[in-house]
Amino acid sequence: MSLAERILQGDTRAASRLMRDIDDEVESAINELKVLYSMTGRAHIFGITGPPGVGKSTLVDKMVEVFRKQSKTVGVIAVDPSSPFSGGAILGDRIRMQRHSTDEGVFIRSLATRGHLGGLSRSTCDIIKVMDAMGKDVILVETVGVGQDEVDIINAADTSIVVLVPGLGDDIQAIKAGILEIGDIFVINKCEQEGADRLEQELRIMLEMGGERPDGWTPPIFWTEAIKGEGIEELVSGIQYHRQILHQEGSYQRQEGERTRYEFLDILKSSMMKRLLQRLNQDGELERMMDAMAKKEKDPYTMVEEIIQKLLP
Amino acid sequence: MSLAERILQGDTRAASRLMRDIDDEVESAINELKVLYSMTGRAHIFGITGPPGVGKSTLVDKMVEVFRKQSKTVGVIAVDPSSPFSGGAILGDRIRMQRHSTDEGVFIRSLATRGHLGGLSRSTCDIIKVMDAMGKDVILVETVGVGQDEVDIINAADTSIVVLVPGLGDDIQAIKAGILEIGDIFVINKCEQEGADRLEQELRIMLEMGGERPDGWTPPIFWTEAIKGEGIEELVSGIQYHRQILHQEGSYQRQEGERTRYEFLDILKSSMMKRLLQRLNQDGELERMMDAMAKKEKDPYTMVEEIIQKLLP
Repeated sequence: MSLAERILQGDTRAASRLMRDIDDEVESAINELKVLYSMTGRAHIFGITGPPGVGKSTLVDKMVEVFRKQSKTVGVIAVDPSSPFSGGAILGDRIRMQRHSTDEGVFIRSLATRGHLGGLSRSTCDIIKVMDAMGKDVILVETVGVGQDEVDIINAADTSIVVLVPGLGDDIQAIKAGILEIGDIFVINKCEQEGADRLEQELRIMLEMGGERPDGWTPPIFWTEAIKGEGIEELVSGIQYHRQILHQEGSYQRQEGERTRYEFLDILKSSMMKRLLQRLNQDGELERMMDAMAKKEKDPYTMVEEIIQKLLP
Repeated sequence: MSLAERILQGDTRAASRLMRDIDDEVESAINELKVLYSMTGRAHIFGITGPPGVGKSTLVDKMVEVFRKQSKTVGVIAVDPSSPFSGGAILGDRIRMQRHSTDEGVFIRSLATRGHLGGLSRSTCDIIKVMDAMGKDVILVETVGVGQDEVDIINAADTSIVVLVPGLGDDIQAIKAGILEIGDIFVINKCEQEGADRLEQELRIMLEMGGERPDGWTPPIFWTEAIKGEGIEELVSGIQYHRQILHQEGSYQRQEGERTRYEFLDILKSSMMKRLLQRLNQDGELERMMDAMAKKEKDPYTMVEEIIQKLLP
């Protein structure tokens, strides 16, 4: 039986195996994904992001608890860029999540590698697909939210949650630029700390300055104290409400369409480059071109134009 | 006269204009870059990275001062990912750099945008090329060093400098993984703070555990107090020594070759995707494919295979 068939029958070891194959860019993984694809599109996908140290992992841990009480099955993808500066407490938090690992309704997967051609968002999308086909009701994708890849991942979710804490001080100015488009829902975690009121006020002003969103949604702001489990049920209700509205307004289909397009282009880009490199490596053409560039006989821009002219006239 | 010709005659306004065109992905920019390409390869390119808040911009500011005393012309590229979480004090630091902006020997450029197809490393490479062709002796590329793009940029430099500060605490464990391969030179900034000795010790242990590097270089560790200008001249001597060794050992040519290859593939990737999308958009093919995927009639993996089969058999 193929991995895909086993996964559709609920075999979690087959799922883990396929995810490892996706990570390792094993060729056959694509064939399994083809089979699974028609069974996807049912899960509610959340992206959770925010600066390092705001307590995202604790929040995810508590959200899983609430979803489990509702008898929903959950997939968790912890995206951990292989960058050297990914921030501090990640390891410890990830270990804390392990208490859910004995619960059959929860499937946890960490993602750290990223290839040169594919990229982190590529593998994350594929792994979301596997969890979706496994029948998980809810998929939580947690990123440290620092690079473009992570932003892309968050944008691909049905509902994006941005987590902040009081006392970021002037940093709120620096993160202002990108924050408005990204968050469907904002969370002020560690809300017992001084400055939560001010943070909410600043956030509201920023959101108002952004004007009305194309989808008509006004992002709510939730207060949580994740470590004590406070405010989590309200937050979960809030995101479930967001999904409900999303489906009513028909904007879900638009969003789903955009996601499909993005995924498709992503797959196209990495596969195309792989094929192109095979072709260029075939008869040592790439090496000859490198030589010519090293000697400054030719510039890379002209060379690329020539290749494209030849292959995609 | 073309922009490239004006740049080669020392016209800095033409250089600014071309850099803006590169940012905006104006088609004609490529033609200018073709002309400039043969005049590149002379500058010493430094990458400076490290976690937010370690004082990279102040360090760069003081390094510029030292280079200027040596009568070297300097280009500075401050890479600021458009990510919402790029950290705090950037704006203030960038303003501090402005004191060099009246010095004709210094050319400063901030880079924040990144397109979907090209990416930040793409534009940074092009802008390095322009500064190199302008005849800058030294080019300093400062990144906040959080995503893969930034790591790629740093890897493309002749000499990579990783800046740390005492008191990162356990964070040093988290950044351990990627740090060894990246840094040719380490800087402990704010070295008057408690814990500088311990940080140096930890760094040395980590570097030793990494074993001998392929290029035989042992990364030195410099102590600086950038805000007071202390240790900067020693650091500059250190990086100049690294370049000297690099040229003696012939590993410079290897590195230059790798950089050329990386740049070439980067240009190839973005141009290829652009061309491919033009083709797919021509007769509404892309829309038809999106429709088929939305209806789950077809999966993106099969579709991509068919496209590649058709276009690059």
